[in-house]
Order: sequence, then C-alpha cells, then structure tokens
Amino acid sequence: MVNIKLSDDKKAVVILDQSLLPNQVKYISQETPEEMYDAIFHLRVRGAPAIGIYAAYCMAVLAQKEASYKPISGCCGTGVADEVFIENMKRHGEYLKSSRPTAVNLAWAVDRVLMAARVEMQKVRMTGDIRANVGYSRLAEVMREEAIAIHNEDIEMCKAISEFGLSLVKDGDGILTHCNAGPLATSRYGTALGPILLGKERGFEFKVFADETRPLLQGARLTTYELHEAGVDVTLICDNMASMVMKNGWVQACFVGCDRVAANGDTANKIGTSGVAILAKHYGVPFYVLGPTSTIDMDCPTGEDIPIELRDPAEIKEKFYEQPMALEDVKCYNPAFDVTDHELITAIITEKGICRPPFTDSLKAVTEK
Amino acid sequence: MVNIKLSDDKKAVVILDQSLLPNQVKYISQETPEEMYDAIFHLRVRGAPAIGIYAAYCMAVLAQKEASYKPISGCCGTGVADEVFIENMKRHGEYLKSSRPTAVNLAWAVDRVLMAARVEMQKVRMTGDIRANVGYSRLAEVMREEAIAIHNEDIEMCKAISEFGLSLVKDGDGILTHCNAGPLATSRYGTALGPILLGKERGFEFKVFADETRPLLQGARLTTYELHEAGVDVTLICDNMASMVMKNGWVQACFVGCDRVAANGDTANKIGTSGVAILAKHYGVPFYVLGPTSTIDMDCPTGEDIPIELRDPAEIKEKFYEQPMALEDVKCYNPAFDVTDHELITAIITEKGICRPPFTDSLKAVTEK
Repeated sequence: MVNIKLSDDKKAVVILDQSLLPNQVKYISQETPEEMYDAIFHLRVRGAPAIGIYAAYCMAVLAQKEASYKPISGCCGTGVADEVFIENMKRHGEYLKSSRPTAVNLAWAVDRVLMAARVEMQKVRMTGDIRANVGYSRLAEVMREEAIAIHNEDIEMCKAISEFGLSLVKDGDGILTHCNAGPLATSRYGTALGPILLGKERGFEFKVFADETRPLLQGARLTTYELHEAGVDVTLICDNMASMVMKNGWVQACFVGCDRVAANGDTANKIGTSGVAILAKHYGVPFYVLGPTSTIDMDCPTGEDIPIELRDPAEIKEKFYEQPMALEDVKCYNPAFDVTDHELITAIITEKGICRPPFTDSLKAVTEK
Repeated sequence: MVNIKLSDDKKAVVILDQSLLPNQVKYISQETPEEMYDAIFHLRVRGAPAIGIYAAYCMAVLAQKEASYKPISGCCGTGVADEVFIENMKRHGEYLKSSRPTAVNLAWAVDRVLMAARVEMQKVRMTGDIRANVGYSRLAEVMREEAIAIHNEDIEMCKAISEFGLSLVKDGDGILTHCNAGPLATSRYGTALGPILLGKERGFEFKVFADETRPLLQGARLTTYELHEAGVDVTLICDNMASMVMKNGWVQACFVGCDRVAANGDTANKIGTSGVAILAKHYGVPFYVLGPTSTIDMDCPTGEDIPIELRDPAEIKEKFYEQPMALEDVKCYNPAFDVTDHELITAIITEKGICRPPFTDSLKAVTEK
C-alpha cells in the first residue's frame, strides 16, 4: 500500500485519500499550494510523519514549478536569483505550515527541504564567486532529492521504532491503540502500529483494541482497516469503552503515536490520548508513545507551550451523519489534540532507542545521538 | 414536556420517541407487549426512572386488556381466577423485564405494580372468604393507580434529588455530565440534570459540558437538547475530550445518573461513566452519582454481580452514519454499561439524602429510611 508518492512527471503529489477510507480506495493528486493545503487541512493526508513526507514532496513539486519560470535576466550574475527562488519557496512553505500548526513534522520537513537548497547555494558560493548562481532547476532537483531522502529515512525509522516497540510486548498480549499511527500515517509499518505489524510478520498474535477516535474516526476508518487487511486480530471500540476493556484485564500495553513531544516528555497527540493515559495509569497498564525523533521538539520546554488547534463544531455534530446529532445553535468545543502529561508516560519509543523517565535527560540524549 | 403518559382510553402508553430527537419531535403509542418490548429495547424510551414509569404504565395497559377477557365461569367462585390474572400479568412482566436486564427500575416497577394487585387480592381474602375474587377489572384498576403513583412519586423524587444535588455546587460552576439523566429520562427535572435545571429556575448560571456519549449519542441528541431548550449554557464535547476540559479547569463537579447501584456503592451506568470517574479523580474533581433509592440494589453486593448487556456491533459501525465507518467483518465490543468502582465516587445523591463513603453504611441507612 503506497500512501504518498510523486507523480511520474513530478508535477504533482499523489496520495491515497484517507478521508474516504474504508469505503473507497481512491488516489488523488495535488499540483497547487491551495490543493496541498486543503489535503492536509481536510485530513486527506494525515499522521505526523506522513504529513512531513507529503509536505516535502509538495515543496519538491512547487520548486519544480518555480524552476519552470525563467529568472529575470540581469539578476543572474548577481547571486540574487537563487535567493529569490528560495524566498518564494519559503513563502510556499509558510503557507503549507499554516495548514496544521500543531504538526511539528510539517514544519520540520518544509525547513529541511529549504535547507537543502540553501546548502547547495552556499556550496557554490564557497567556491569563491559570491555572485555564482546554482540555477533554479538544480535547486529544484536538490529539493526533490531531499524529499525522497526524507521518505526513505522514514521507512527505516519506522522499522527501527517497530523493533524497539516489539521488545516491550510478548506474543498473545492485548494492545490498545488510539487514533491511527500505522502505515497510512507514515510510510511502512507505522509507529504505534509498527510493533504489531512487525510482530505479525514474525508470527506473533496480538489482540488489538482500536479506539474509534471521535470525531473523525481515524481508529474505526483507518486503524481497523490497516490491521484487518494485515490479518491482525482487531476489535473496534468506542473511545469511552477503553476503561471497561482495561478493567477486564484485556490490555497489557497501550501504543499511541505523537504529533509533538516537548523536552520534558509532555506529548501532544490526537484528542483523547491523555484520557487513555490516565486510564492506563489507573489500571496499571504501561503507556507507550511511539514516534521518530523528528517529533521531539527540544525548543518546546513543556506541553503548555504546544498550541492546540481548535476545529469546526460541525465535525462533532454533523460529519459522517445522515442528519445532525445536535441542534444547530448548540455550542461545541473541538480541540484536535490534547497533551499527555509526561508523568503518565511509561516510555517514549524512537528510532534511536527507548526513552524512559526522567525524559528531560533521555530525550536530550536520544536527540543528540 | 411530557415524555410518558397513558392514552385517554387507557388502551395504550404514549411516549415521546427519544430515538428521533433532536431532529424530530414525535409521539408514538404502544398497545402490545411486543411493541412495548421494542420501545425499551430500541431506546425509544430510556433512562432508568423513565423505563420504570413506562413499564408500570405498560403493565396497567396490559392489565386493562387482560381484564377485557371474561374469566372462565366456574373458576370465579374458587379464588383461582384472580390468580390466573396475576399469573398472566407476571408473564407479561417477565417479558418486559427481559428487554433490558441491567435496568433494576424496570424490574422494580413491574414487581411493584404486580404486588399492588396481589395485596388487593389478599385484602379481599382477609375478609374471611378465601374463595373471594377481586375481579379482573378492579385488579386492573389497582394496577393503573399504582402506575400513576409511581409516576407522581418520581416527580417528587427528582425534585428532592435536585435539591440535594444543588447544595453541592455554586453559581457559575462548570459541570460535566455523561449520557442523559434529565427530564426525558425521568419525569421532571431529572436526576443528574436536576440540580442544573432547578438551579436555572433559581437564577444560577452553570456552564455545562455534555459528553456526546457514543455509540447512541444520548448526550448530543438529548442532553444538549433539554438543556438548550431550558436556556442553560451547554457545550457539547466528544467523550474523549472530557480529559482536556477538566485539565483546563473548566469543571467543578461531575453529575451522572445510574442504572443500578450495588450495596457497596459500585455503580452501573452508561458505558463511559467509569472513565469519566477515573479522569475526575485524576484531576481532583468531585464525582457525583444521582438517582432514586429504587436504583440501589441491596441484594447486589458489588458491581461484579451486575450483568452487563452487550449490544449490536452495528450501533458502533453503522448507526446514524451515511455509510459504514469500518469494514463489515471488523469485530466490535459494545457493552451498554460499565461499572464505576465505589472508590471513585465522591457521593451518591438520592431523594432521601446524600450518601458518602463508606457506602455500605450510608446506602443501607438511606434505603431503610
């Protein structure tokens, strides 16, 4: 299952539209910044790492388009043209970033692709001619190469996360997961679902409970879809049933993804995650956060510094339903994420290793590796 | 708003179909045991006290029907005819009870109406003639009077519960509630919503957060409807947002109803209630259970003795939606209730007073009052 790729002519990004699953398997392509913004905002592509990969390819496509405009002659010899190109790309990047301000991977991927272009520009100038220009098409090529590198690294990263996660559970365990942090949300394996899928390949039989994850039902629509397709024993529950499932003794570990991890271990993830963590603590079930080190934001001291995106009340009252479930003038509070306090987290599993409390130390160590 | 009543000719029970709210306000009537069973099973009437009132009226209607069959002549002089009548009514009662085995009020109301008929029979026989017959129509009349008494007592009861509940909060407080325990679920005021509605009458302004309460969305469809109609400041949230709302410091008390309270205080209520209680404990918010003493089952030692009804997976995957939210062969776990451990409950508020831990003592005292 390929969820994100460049089109053959490199003029568009092609994605599996996750907003239509599981009833429809449809690929759609985006060429303009507006289409790209829309795809992120409307969760056609979602999951922190997938958004990063997607944004990187978006930048590559937009760079390709930018390169097709000829630089104004006369600028070329002054070293300014490259900077104009990068300035324009930066503007596109800021626009893409604004589609989901909480997703640190989005900003990270955009900045990394831009940085690759800047480095290339510096390299040429280091040769001595400060007026030297790399040229638009080479810059676009460098950015595309960087996007592909981000994608490939993600595949490797998920594999490593899955290996570390798998070491924390045993054959036959019950695992509860919230939202969707599987292959659709990343590249291959996924993060939170990675150990389950890697374990499945090795003959482990887990019993997975998937929170449906209101209001957008990523758990019902995506997680059960991915796990069921992979032959994993998965049971769908409403979010409010997690307490009962844990009380029944059916859960030996919780695996969740993350959208942003602060330096002290506080973790922003899909709304409802903090509730699962509190239940897990109450019932004595280990609670694991899985994500690449790119999700760790050492510049963000605690969860209080993570902005929380508030979304449209219609997602709660109307979306997916045949008719509205509450009167039109009833107010809603619809935060997309919540922050799980680091004290509720047993360990944070990255591609570079398992971080345990105190997270201030272990996260620092892992990000400096 | 009248939610349950006898039809004018007393041949049917008329209810406001709660399964159609808030988009449609429609009254429907039931005459046969099958229609009555269906109305309970499909939650057209719901809420523990309302189910009790409804079942009492159902018994009255079925008794009226039974009374319209003439007793076999020859039996009449032997004292047997009354017993045949009561035996038949008992059968109807058992059938109605089986529609929602967890609802203790259902069984309680059915048995109480039956007991009224038995008492009447005993009274007549106590006059000395052990072959004396009350007669079908008088027995039916007695049962109807008992049903009306149950209804009127519930109105008084809700008022008393509301008064006690109101004493636990103050003007301006934030209150979180789960599922629906308002007038629709009872008679007037309701239980969990009673203090809010009574407070509103007295000029208190509460800020209420209503869990939507998956999978059947009673919170979205009914609670926000009732509170909004009453002019209360209500905000709808998904169940998994309760943690965030409490973390924000917006909740000073949780008010929930109950379907059955065990002798030790363990409380069965709508699925998700135990999760709310665990969150409340974590955030230091008092968690109050409100319900009539008829909901307390002193014959049930602990929550482990309360049977939990498992419902159709289609309620999670398909109900209310335009199209299914998970593949057809994905398994679901769909318990209708969960049991909140008594250690998580700050107090249980009944019409006879506020019970605090140790509940084994306080519940015993209140039920013996």
